[in-house]
Amino acid sequence: MANFELIKPIARSSPTKIVLLVIDGLGGLPDPSTGKTELETANTPNLDKLAARGICGLIDPVSPGITPGSAPGHLGLFGYDPLKSNIGRGVLEAVGVDFDLQPGDVAARGNFCTVDEAGLITDRRAGRISTEKCTELCQLLGGLVIDKVKVFVQPVREHRFVAAFRGEDVRTEISDSDPQQIGVAPNVVTEQYVMARTTASVVNQFITKAKTILAEQSPANMVLLRGFSNRPDFPQMSEIYKLKPAAIASYPMYRGLARLVGMDVLETGTSIEDEFQTLARNYSDYDFFFLHVKGADSAGEDGDFARKVRVIEQVDSALPQLTSLQPDVIVVTGDHSTPALLKNHSWHPVPLLLCSEWCRPDTVSQFSESACIQGGLGRFPATQIMPLAMANALKLTKFGA
Amino acid sequence: MANFELIKPIARSSPTKIVLLVIDGLGGLPDPSTGKTELETANTPNLDKLAARGICGLIDPVSPGITPGSAPGHLGLFGYDPLKSNIGRGVLEAVGVDFDLQPGDVAARGNFCTVDEAGLITDRRAGRISTEKCTELCQLLGGLVIDKVKVFVQPVREHRFVAAFRGEDVRTEISDSDPQQIGVAPNVVTEQYVMARTTASVVNQFITKAKTILAEQSPANMVLLRGFSNRPDFPQMSEIYKLKPAAIASYPMYRGLARLVGMDVLETGTSIEDEFQTLARNYSDYDFFFLHVKGADSAGEDGDFARKVRVIEQVDSALPQLTSLQPDVIVVTGDHSTPALLKNHSWHPVPLLLCSEWCRPDTVSQFSESACIQGGLGRFPATQIMPLAMANALKLTKFGA
Repeated sequence: MANFELIKPIARSSPTKIVLLVIDGLGGLPDPSTGKTELETANTPNLDKLAARGICGLIDPVSPGITPGSAPGHLGLFGYDPLKSNIGRGVLEAVGVDFDLQPGDVAARGNFCTVDEAGLITDRRAGRISTEKCTELCQLLGGLVIDKVKVFVQPVREHRFVAAFRGEDVRTEISDSDPQQIGVAPNVVTEQYVMARTTASVVNQFITKAKTILAEQSPANMVLLRGFSNRPDFPQMSEIYKLKPAAIASYPMYRGLARLVGMDVLETGTSIEDEFQTLARNYSDYDFFFLHVKGADSAGEDGDFARKVRVIEQVDSALPQLTSLQPDVIVVTGDHSTPALLKNHSWHPVPLLLCSEWCRPDTVSQFSESACIQGGLGRFPATQIMPLAMANALKLTKFGA
Repeated sequence: MANFELIKPIARSSPTKIVLLVIDGLGGLPDPSTGKTELETANTPNLDKLAARGICGLIDPVSPGITPGSAPGHLGLFGYDPLKSNIGRGVLEAVGVDFDLQPGDVAARGNFCTVDEAGLITDRRAGRISTEKCTELCQLLGGLVIDKVKVFVQPVREHRFVAAFRGEDVRTEISDSDPQQIGVAPNVVTEQYVMARTTASVVNQFITKAKTILAEQSPANMVLLRGFSNRPDFPQMSEIYKLKPAAIASYPMYRGLARLVGMDVLETGTSIEDEFQTLARNYSDYDFFFLHVKGADSAGEDGDFARKVRVIEQVDSALPQLTSLQPDVIVVTGDHSTPALLKNHSWHPVPLLLCSEWCRPDTVSQFSESACIQGGLGRFPATQIMPLAMANALKLTKFGA
C-alpha cells in the first residue's frame, strides 16, 4: 500500500471537514434515443452549481476496462489499493448482513442445498428458497457450540447465509465443503496445515449436525460452505489520514466495508432524506463522512433508466442540506458505473466533482459524464481521491524539505 | 506483469470480435506552413465517422517522453509491459526476417565488417555492402555444423545478418564478439558461466571459419556478433485473454512480434488492400485481429510528410471493408509517433479511437492528434488498450465481489 507510506507521514488532524457523497453506480451510458446518460437526463441544478464552483474529473475505480464489484469499488474510494486489499468471500457475506465479525472469527459463505437419499447434491441453491424460509432455517442452526467453538448462522437472501465460527484459535486454512457442482456429495472439509485440524473437525461436525437438523426440510436439507476467511487487518483510516471518520449507509454491505477501514457507522434510516438528516445530526462529531446512496445502482442493475434518473434527482434535491453545513471539502462520485443499458456494473469511468475553497475551479458547469471529460482533474485512479480531498481540506503537510 | 494477474482470472471467451488496426508511426507533428499534422492533413472521412461514433484518446506507448522501438511499441499494444518484456537483440533480428526461431535456439545480431591485415577492425559495417551482397555472403556461411550445433545465417539488410545456433544445450550466457569500436580486434567470445563454455567454443569456431571463408571478400572480410539471446517465453494471448488471435502484417518484424505473443500469422500480400482482404477472408476463424500498416512509419522516417498523408488516406479508403464486417470492437491507433519533421520515431502520444456498442461516445468527431486531446478516454498507457477492448467486447467479468 505504497499510497499510505506517502500519505501517513504528512497527514495531520485539523478541524476541517470532508464529505464524500457516493452515488452507487453513478456513471451510465446514453439512452440511444436521446444521446444522454442517466446523469445527463436528470435535472440536477444543485449538483451543477457545485460542479461550477468546484473542479471535475473522471475516475477509474480499478483501471481502464476493469469492472469492479462493490468491495474493490469502495476500497478504492477510501484510498486502499483494490488489487491488494483482499476480502474473503465469507467475510464479504458477513459484512453484507451487518454481522459484527470479530478479529479471529472465521466466516464462511453458506448455501442451503438439496441432497438426494444417497447424499448427492441435486440443487446447489435448494430451489432458491425464500428469504423468510432461509431466516427460519438459520434460527434452527444458530447457536451451536462445538468443541468450545460458537457457531453463528445468519440469513443473507434466498438460499444464502453466513456461518461464523468463534472460539480460540479457529483457523481459515481449511477447504470448502461446497464442491460447486451437482451430482456429487459435499466435500469433507480438510485442513491445509496441521494447526487447522481442529477447525476442520468443528466445521465437519457442524455440517453433520446441520444435515440432521435439516433432514425434514427438503428442498433445503443440507448446507454447503465455502470461502472461510478472517476479517482483514486493514490499516485504519484514523491511522492513515488522522481522520475521525463516520459512515452513513442504509445497506449493510457498505456499513460493513466502512467498518473494515475503521469508520464509525451511524444509525440511519432507509431513505436518502434519512441519510442526509443523519449527516446533519452528527456533523459536529466527525471530520470525515462517507454518505452512501444505493438506489442509483439498484435501478441501473434493474435496467430502469428512468428510476436511476429519479434517484439522482432525489440526491440533488437533498443536496442543499449537505451544502448548508458548509463542509470544507465536498466530493461527489460513484464507486463504479452501472449503466441501465447494461443492467450491470461496468468499466466506464465515473464522474467526480470536488468542491473546496482551494480547488482551482475549471470550466465545467454541469455534473455529467461528458462535461467531466473536460474537467480540471482529468482522468485518474479512484485511490487518489482521498489524498486530493485531504489536500483540499489542508490536512496534508509538505512532502520532503 | 501485474496487468495479466488482474486480467487472466476475469477474461472469458465469447463470440464477439475485436480488430486492432495499427497504423505504424501514426502520430505526427504539424507542418509549420499549415499547422496541421500528417493525420490532420489527410482527408479521412471514414476514420472521422468512426471517431464520431466511438470514443477517443491519446496513448503513451511506454511513458511520457519515451520514444519506443518497434518491439516495445507493439508489446504495449498487446498489453505486455514494455519495460518488463525484454527481447534480446539477436532475437529481434531473427524475428525481423521471419526466421522461425525455436525454443532453445540462440540468435545473434551479426555485422559484416572490414578488418585489416593485422586483424583490426577498420569499418564495423563493411562500407554498408548491398543487401544482395549480404545475401550472397550469408549463403557462404550458412549450414555449418560445429560440434553438433547447426548454424543458420540469414541476411537482414546491407551489412546486417542474423546467426542462429541450434543444438542441445546451446546457451546465451556468452560475451559479444563485437567490440563496437574500430582499431581493435574482434573480441574472443567468453562464457559468463561454466555451463556456457561449449557454446562459446562453438561460436568462436564459427567466427574463425567465417574469417577463412570471407578472406577474399573485402570489404566484408569478417563478422561481428552480439546480443546472443533466446526466444522469450512470453505468456500467450490465448492464455491471458482467452482469445483466438491472428496477425495480418506485410513486414516480417511485426509477424515475428505477433508470433512471440502467440498469434496465428496469416498469409497476406504487401499492399494495404491485400491486408484488408486477408482480414475479410479469415474473419470467421478468429476473435481478435491485429492488422498492421507499415507505410506511415516508413514515410515518416523518410521525412516524407506528403507520402505519410497518402498512406493514411489509403487506410481510410480501405476502412469500409473493415467496418462492413461489423466487428464488436474496433481500435485504431499506432505503436508510436513518427513525425516526418523528425524523420524518426518519437515520444509524442498517439491518437486512438475505440468504437463499440458500449463505448460511451464523446464529442470528438475528427480523428486527429488535437481532437483526441478532448477525447473521453483521456491520455493513458498503451498497455490498457487490451483491457479496454476486452471490456467493450464484453469479454471481462467483474473483479471482486
